[in-house]
Amino acid sequence: MSSEPRYFEDFHIGQRFAFGHYEVTKAEIIAFAKEFDPQPHHLDEEAAKHSMLGGLSASGWHICAMTMRIVVDGVFGKAESRGGAGVEDCRWLKPVRPSDVLRVEAEILELTPHPRKPLGFARMQWNVFNQREQVAMMINTPIFARRDGP
Amino acid sequence: MSSEPRYFEDFHIGQRFAFGHYEVTKAEIIAFAKEFDPQPHHLDEEAAKHSMLGGLSASGWHICAMTMRIVVDGVFGKAESRGGAGVEDCRWLKPVRPSDVLRVEAEILELTPHPRKPLGFARMQWNVFNQREQVAMMINTPIFARRDGP
Repeated sequence: MSSEPRYFEDFHIGQRFAFGHYEVTKAEIIAFAKEFDPQPHHLDEEAAKHSMLGGLSASGWHICAMTMRIVVDGVFGKAESRGGAGVEDCRWLKPVRPSDVLRVEAEILELTPHPRKPLGFARMQWNVFNQREQVAMMINTPIFARRDGP
Repeated sequence: MSSEPRYFEDFHIGQRFAFGHYEVTKAEIIAFAKEFDPQPHHLDEEAAKHSMLGGLSASGWHICAMTMRIVVDGVFGKAESRGGAGVEDCRWLKPVRPSDVLRVEAEILELTPHPRKPLGFARMQWNVFNQREQVAMMINTPIFARRDGP
């Protein structure tokens, strides 16, 4: 495991990171769902029991947002992050429920310097786990500054 | 444009939907960023001016969440939605800023009945626009109940 990369040059292919201890609460699952994904299986415990998820579960987009927070706290917040262009793949593998504690294992898959700008693209896989099993997987390509700017 | 599909059988390939009028506010951009994506270009107007985005802009995950709300209000909330397994592709094409008004144009790309269960997979493209231009694109595959249950 590596720690504290700051610039694009501080990453290498195959580099792994592990971080996070994000406690999921029922109140936050419901608050997020009310604002962004108001479907019964994310909003209401009783309705959720009879849903395909078998109980109250976080919106998939809430899982993504919590994962981002773990990754920002773990690496982006300390590095010269310059955003990202999107997500190549994202799978919600298992329900995320109240009292789950989320953590992320990340791996660098590919590193591509920008052809003209002092930036670089770091294609990464983020594996998200609760206490028992993997609950989500994402592949995306955040952008970092190179040491020579900007 | 079609309206009010309820079951998997109510969708057809090439079917298009247009919905949404989601007003993005500065307070909401900052509140989402504080909780899930605390990077300067999503949090602080002054810092954002000097960032690659040239001004305060919503987190990409906030764009996804707002898009989900538009789609739930437009179609999922009225249909027998049974969740989704993930996102195949998601691109943040342009910054989303305070006072933007978002809307979605969706198209059904592929329809696949579940081989055993009374469910079906509706592979869709969601194109997200503000008042001026397309700001995001997502391809994903929500699941709907078939008329014969469950």
